[in-house]
Amino acid sequence: MLRIFSKSWDPKNKHCYVTGGSSGLGLAVAKLLVSKGAHVSIVSRDARRLENAMKELEAVRTFPHQILKCYSYDLVTAAGSREALDAVCEPHQGKNPDAIFMLAGSCHPRFFIEETEETMRTQMDQTYWVQAWTALEASKRMVRDKSKGKIVFHSAYIGYITLIGYAAYGPGRMALRALADTLRQEFLLYDIDVHIAFPGTMYTPGYDIENATKPKITLKIEETDPGMTGDQYAKGLLRGVQNGDFHISPDLLGNIFRASMRGVAPSGNFMVDSLWNFIGWVGLPIWRMSVDSTVKGHRKEHEEYLTSKGFYSSDTKSSTLS
Amino acid sequence: MLRIFSKSWDPKNKHCYVTGGSSGLGLAVAKLLVSKGAHVSIVSRDARRLENAMKELEAVRTFPHQILKCYSYDLVTAAGSREALDAVCEPHQGKNPDAIFMLAGSCHPRFFIEETEETMRTQMDQTYWVQAWTALEASKRMVRDKSKGKIVFHSAYIGYITLIGYAAYGPGRMALRALADTLRQEFLLYDIDVHIAFPGTMYTPGYDIENATKPKITLKIEETDPGMTGDQYAKGLLRGVQNGDFHISPDLLGNIFRASMRGVAPSGNFMVDSLWNFIGWVGLPIWRMSVDSTVKGHRKEHEEYLTSKGFYSSDTKSSTLS
Repeated sequence: MLRIFSKSWDPKNKHCYVTGGSSGLGLAVAKLLVSKGAHVSIVSRDARRLENAMKELEAVRTFPHQILKCYSYDLVTAAGSREALDAVCEPHQGKNPDAIFMLAGSCHPRFFIEETEETMRTQMDQTYWVQAWTALEASKRMVRDKSKGKIVFHSAYIGYITLIGYAAYGPGRMALRALADTLRQEFLLYDIDVHIAFPGTMYTPGYDIENATKPKITLKIEETDPGMTGDQYAKGLLRGVQNGDFHISPDLLGNIFRASMRGVAPSGNFMVDSLWNFIGWVGLPIWRMSVDSTVKGHRKEHEEYLTSKGFYSSDTKSSTLS
Repeated sequence: MLRIFSKSWDPKNKHCYVTGGSSGLGLAVAKLLVSKGAHVSIVSRDARRLENAMKELEAVRTFPHQILKCYSYDLVTAAGSREALDAVCEPHQGKNPDAIFMLAGSCHPRFFIEETEETMRTQMDQTYWVQAWTALEASKRMVRDKSKGKIVFHSAYIGYITLIGYAAYGPGRMALRALADTLRQEFLLYDIDVHIAFPGTMYTPGYDIENATKPKITLKIEETDPGMTGDQYAKGLLRGVQNGDFHISPDLLGNIFRASMRGVAPSGNFMVDSLWNFIGWVGLPIWRMSVDSTVKGHRKEHEEYLTSKGFYSSDTKSSTLS
């Protein structure tokens, strides 16, 4: 409510570090930051994609001395995340980034009973750890150097409301929300702001990867989500960060989910959120009952699917290891 | 609302598998199940504690042929969880347990910037994986054998509302909620019921372990939580399971948190929950502001604490690995 009196955050001349910055939402946010005059460092695993991404960033450069850099690191380990941060800080005299946008990750939906130890762990790496390590390393540096900073996490609708097919993915997305909620409070001890964004369906290269393993029933239930492009979502995300929003959900459904899962997270506008809360209170149980009934109606087809996959005849003893 | 017409679940003569069953909440639930005539298998790591626990279970045995067994396994890997299930099923002609109560785990609060790669991973093992592997292995068996079953997860208040000091613990607890929510829906495809419990402070041996690393500021904020004994909580948990409740929070605060974090989770009573939702809507922002202000007031003391710990002079480069 006090927003009209406070100045919005300006990325101009700030050093912004964007993980997963070579494609999809990461690249869209990186481009937007460059166009607003920020110094931008992107990190991702794929060197060839980084090269293409750099061309796109150079195309929107706003002044000659703007520092635009790319680096190839794997961020699913603490060591990789630390090395990436070392590299990213170097052209800035070792100074910590002013803002970190953690947009790396991927989604691989599946029926739970088709998950293995490996797929479960990989999905936790690609949701939770890929952001948690960067947050841990960056916040230690910021506190040690007593520097101001912004840390932006990225969850998803599925971090608010789970759905059949996301048993490996949802936990990591909700874990990020818990981490962000805790750090928002804990970082009141320092000068570090925390944000977390909750996008729905986004038409990016990651969406095609996601749909490759997505159960049919999940695809059917998601048909009604209109979705956004990466560029549309990047604008909403950056607007939220600039406004100082903590949970960022720049669309109608996201706001209803947010209000229904608010817990003790601060929200922007008590009156508007009362409306979202009420809509969720009445509407979400009806939606859930409809989805539940769709799932129940899928039992026979699902049993045929499991039979065709040889699930009933496979070896129980090695099930989680294969 | 239809509860009065449905029969409550009776553990008598059912095989109940209780992880973490050698002490605290796990032992309390195991004893309660034995006293209600269930065959009970408990698993935990510590062989000596298992021996003492068996004496307590034998003391409440209700009939001579009641099968009471204990096993020592480490459940933080998929392999350990699979081997434990193999062992537990053996005295029951290889049949899957009728109900699985996943009550193993531990809590080690700390300031986030004092966490390391190892402490972060251990805490995720001790919250999320220690339950996720058993759920994965058990549900594969239940689906393959087309057997009915109950899987009971165990989260905490911190799975609803996070708090300074729980940056490593909260994510695992909230991840469990996401897993339970997903599986409740996905298991409509099979005959498996899912439940998840959210206890607050519980006066068990785990509570002393937890308080050993808990930051002072967290202890101070938690002073107002009245807490329960393991036995009190076990009764509430089992009542919830018997009633068919999905999210189980058998106390006032838990219900307010639950309604404020309901998302699309089904709840027992729409009218009563409207009241919890309203109380949470008005009360939780006030509580949060009060906690936030306590945290801000702790800045100076915290800086002195970090100085005394040598945080500002330690080596940044190896920070997450030490």
